[in-house]
Parts: sequence; C-alpha cells; structure tokens
Amino acid sequence: MATVKHKILVLSGKGGVGKSTFSAQLSFALAAMDFQVGLLDIDICGPSIPKMLGLEGQEIHQSNLGWSPVYVESNLGVMSIGFMLPNPDEAVIWRGPRKNGIIKQFLKDVYWGELDFLVVDAPPGTSDEHISIVQFLQATGLDGAVIVTTPQQVSLIDVRKEVSFCKKVGLQVLGVVENMSGLCQSLSEFRFMHLTETGEQKDMTEWVIAYMREKAPEMLNLVAFSEVFDSSAGGGAKMCRDLGVPFLGKVPLDPQLCKAAEEGRSCFDDSKCSASAPALKMIVEKLLSQLQVSRMEDGTYA
Amino acid sequence: MATVKHKILVLSGKGGVGKSTFSAQLSFALAAMDFQVGLLDIDICGPSIPKMLGLEGQEIHQSNLGWSPVYVESNLGVMSIGFMLPNPDEAVIWRGPRKNGIIKQFLKDVYWGELDFLVVDAPPGTSDEHISIVQFLQATGLDGAVIVTTPQQVSLIDVRKEVSFCKKVGLQVLGVVENMSGLCQSLSEFRFMHLTETGEQKDMTEWVIAYMREKAPEMLNLVAFSEVFDSSAGGGAKMCRDLGVPFLGKVPLDPQLCKAAEEGRSCFDDSKCSASAPALKMIVEKLLSQLQVSRMEDGTYA
Repeated sequence: MATVKHKILVLSGKGGVGKSTFSAQLSFALAAMDFQVGLLDIDICGPSIPKMLGLEGQEIHQSNLGWSPVYVESNLGVMSIGFMLPNPDEAVIWRGPRKNGIIKQFLKDVYWGELDFLVVDAPPGTSDEHISIVQFLQATGLDGAVIVTTPQQVSLIDVRKEVSFCKKVGLQVLGVVENMSGLCQSLSEFRFMHLTETGEQKDMTEWVIAYMREKAPEMLNLVAFSEVFDSSAGGGAKMCRDLGVPFLGKVPLDPQLCKAAEEGRSCFDDSKCSASAPALKMIVEKLLSQLQVSRMEDGTYA
Repeated sequence: MATVKHKILVLSGKGGVGKSTFSAQLSFALAAMDFQVGLLDIDICGPSIPKMLGLEGQEIHQSNLGWSPVYVESNLGVMSIGFMLPNPDEAVIWRGPRKNGIIKQFLKDVYWGELDFLVVDAPPGTSDEHISIVQFLQATGLDGAVIVTTPQQVSLIDVRKEVSFCKKVGLQVLGVVENMSGLCQSLSEFRFMHLTETGEQKDMTEWVIAYMREKAPEMLNLVAFSEVFDSSAGGGAKMCRDLGVPFLGKVPLDPQLCKAAEEGRSCFDDSKCSASAPALKMIVEKLLSQLQVSRMEDGTYA
C-alpha cells in the first residue's frame, strides 16, 4: 500500500446505483491516460467487478510477495473477492468476523507494485466493515471518497448518510456522481408500441421508422431523453450545494454503457457510448483536479 | 405473529433493484383487494418504506401489546426501522450484534392484530441477519420469498445466490420478479435532443412535438420502449426455468411509477402508471395463486 500514490474509495448509500460500473469505468479511464491503476473490489455483497472487466473465471495467484492481481492490461490490475468464490451460483453467507477478516486480508495481502491510483470498490451502506476499511486505508494515506448515487430522493437520503459517515470518520468527500441521471438513447434505437385499452401491445416500430425515414429523416438523428427518476427536488447537484461537498457530474442511463459493463469492456474504446462516455470523461477530469493531478502541456499528467 | 395468515419475505440479491418499491406496491395492491395487510421494513441499510408510503416523519407508539404500526389506511399498517431514526441525514453505523438485536425486536415486538398478509421487506444480500430473519419467521410459519431482480447478468448472478440461500435455509421461492425490465413511456413525454459533434445538446422537443401533431398525430399516442439493460442472455424468465423456480413477471421502468414511489402513492389509484400498474397487478394475481388464495365468484378471495 505504501507504493500507491492515490487511493480513492468508491462508496454508495445503497446498492444498485452503478457504483461498480463507475469504479470499473474510472479504472479504464485512468489506465487509458497511461496511469498505473489498481482496482480492488471488496464488495462482498455481490462482487461484480470480475464480470465488468471481462475477467470472469480468472483465478488469483499467490507469490511470496502476496496475492497477485489479475491484469486486464499491463497497467490495470484487478483484485476481487469474486475471484475467491468457488461457485458463482452459491450463496456465500458471511458471518461478521469472517467478513471483516477477508476484507482486511484483501486490503493487506495484495501485491500491487507501484501504482498511481488504487480504486477501491466498497460494499454499499455504512456498517462496521466500512469503519474497518477506512481505518485501514487511512493508516496508509487515503485521498478520499467518491460517492455514487441516483437522482431519486430515496437514494439522496442515503447519500446524506454517507456524507455524514465520511465526516464522522474524517474522510474527505472528493465528490458525488449522479448516475442513471435520465435515459439518453438514439430515437432510432427504440421500439414503438400501441397500447390498446385491454392492455395489449401492438408493435408499431417498423411503421414509425419507415414513416420517419420518409417524412422526417432529421428525427432519426435525434436522441430521446427521459428523466426516468423524478428529480424535481433538485437531485444530486442541489444536495451537494446543501452539504458543501463537490458535485462531480451526471451520467445518463445509457443502454450502451450497460452493454459495455455486461461485456466487460471500456466505454472509452469506441464511440458506441456517445451518451455516457463524454460525461464520465468530464467526471474523471474533475476528480483529477480535486486530487490536484493536472495535465501537462505535453499531454501527460503530474 | 400467530395472528398473521400469510407471511411473505421480499428479498433481492443486491440493493437498488426496486425491492422496496415492489414491497410497497404489493402492499397497496393487497390492501385494495380488501385484505388486512401489514408491511414490515427491516432493511436497515436504508429504510425507504416510510417515504414510499407517504409516512415520512411519523412516529411509532408503544402500547402494552407492543409497538403499534403506522396506518396508511385502516387495513394497511406499516412498521419501519426508518421510524426509529432520529435524523434522516445521520449515518447509522450498525455493529453486528446491535443490528441483529433491532431486527429481532422488530419481528417480535410489533402488535399487528389480525392480518391476512404480512409483507416483510428484507435487507439486500445474503448475510447472517438473513438467517436470523428466516429462522425467526419460520418458527411462526413463513409462506416463502419473492425475489426481486433487474434483467442484467450481474443482478441475475446475485439472484442465483439468493435462490441457493433459500434452498439452504428451507425457504420456498414463491417467485422472481424482474423489475426495471426496459423503459416504457409515452413518446410525447420524452425530450428530443440533437447532439452536435462537439458534444453540445440542442433541444428539439418543441419542433418534434409540433411536427408529430401536424403530420403524424398517431405517433403521439404511441409508447416508446427501450430495453435499457441488456437481457440478451434471457433475463429472469430463462434463469427461473434453469433453476426451477416460478417467474412472476416483468415490471418495466416506468417514470410514473418512480414518481408514485417518490410521492408515497399507490400506482393503482389512478391511470398514470399505465406502463407498470397492469404488470404489477398480474404479478400480484400470480403470487396469490402461488399462495393458493383464490378469487371467489363474488369477487372476494378465500
């Protein structure tokens, strides 16, 4: 851990907000910037990092220096509790002490080598294992936490708790990311349906596409945006202003990003994730400026 | 607990899949069918039931029979750990033993009276508190569990674990609900944007709506459907076939349902949730038939 320059803890108030997707894409983004990156997944509730980096079924090896991470690329190493589970279908029932034991081992016994960044994907919530994690990481220098949320009030309530937790344990909040912030998708990728009064659905997609192609081809190039989750109360940005913590930005719910995550790919490798990748890119830049890592004139970072 | 006819545990492999939204709407639906319903929220990770039933800020009272639930309607009582927390912004850090203690108290010390159904919203995952919950409920008769998931592989992996957990502890799986199963929204409720090559967005909504109104008014009555989460691997239905457990159905991601949840309303009260309410209704009917509760000719249930 002493050979790691920056350590970032990725937290969320509740599960299912895309914390692991964010951790994975943050790691891909940092690696693409030529940083030496480690991604540590200690979300024992449901370790999804192996899948999201295309590393399912991989095993970890032990050397005399400790456990060796699995490498996606030469500058992106991954360690996950998921690699340790014999059968992915099996329920692992973690009793308290064993849970803390395995987390501590993961923090201590992995040989990362020299790293610019270690991204730590933590379990959701605020429980005693979070205290152990923070205390352990703080002893070796922890930059702070990124909190991932979704726009709904029920999620934001949990973020307030997460921020209060960070204050309690003396952990800097590097910023809040609002994920699933509306759906953004090319209009031509939707299906169109007529709902009859009896509740039946009639697929009208071919008709609509043919109609647009003939009469309004400009429409085919538009993206359709749905707010999805009600954010009339101001969403993450307002909450951050209220709490005095940085807001890093919004990432829309992008089916192409979901697909990239399912397939273990970086969203920055091609142009498919046009609705989400630019937003994620801006968030990473903002995070780097929070960490006072800045881009040099020659394009490198210092 | 002895005065409760049916007890249903609502589980999810991970958080954020809409487990609480489902528990809330299931309770609303059963109450609308004139059943006597109790909803018990023991999701200590982030109790969202008070908000979803419009009961924020309510307090619970104690009588000599035990804690009294808060009543939404005369036949729908609610008890949540959320009612016990002094400040919603405060992080409650539950240490293991205290966590099990408070859960046990909630299961034991609430005076429900005569109930047809008790819906128990459990924390996500499979941990030692789940074993305690199941063991306690089984001692007084537990019908089984409904597992809520989303269509992505990462969620489905967790459901497999949840099913394996149920088998281990001898709990019947009443069925699996696939939530957020695509976005379904009236085309006229979207915003339409032109993305320029520099990444800027130009709002074209007015133009699109005016165009459709003039040239293709039929289009305004269509609903647009986006798969959102990749389900090419077959989603919840296929998984249920593989595991030999009942599939109860899919609920689309419906912005109107999200709004109803934010505002603590039933989605069955008006016709706004036309994309999700009929799906939920069918799921409730299927669940009742699993429980061998059937509709009589006079419209009542027995």
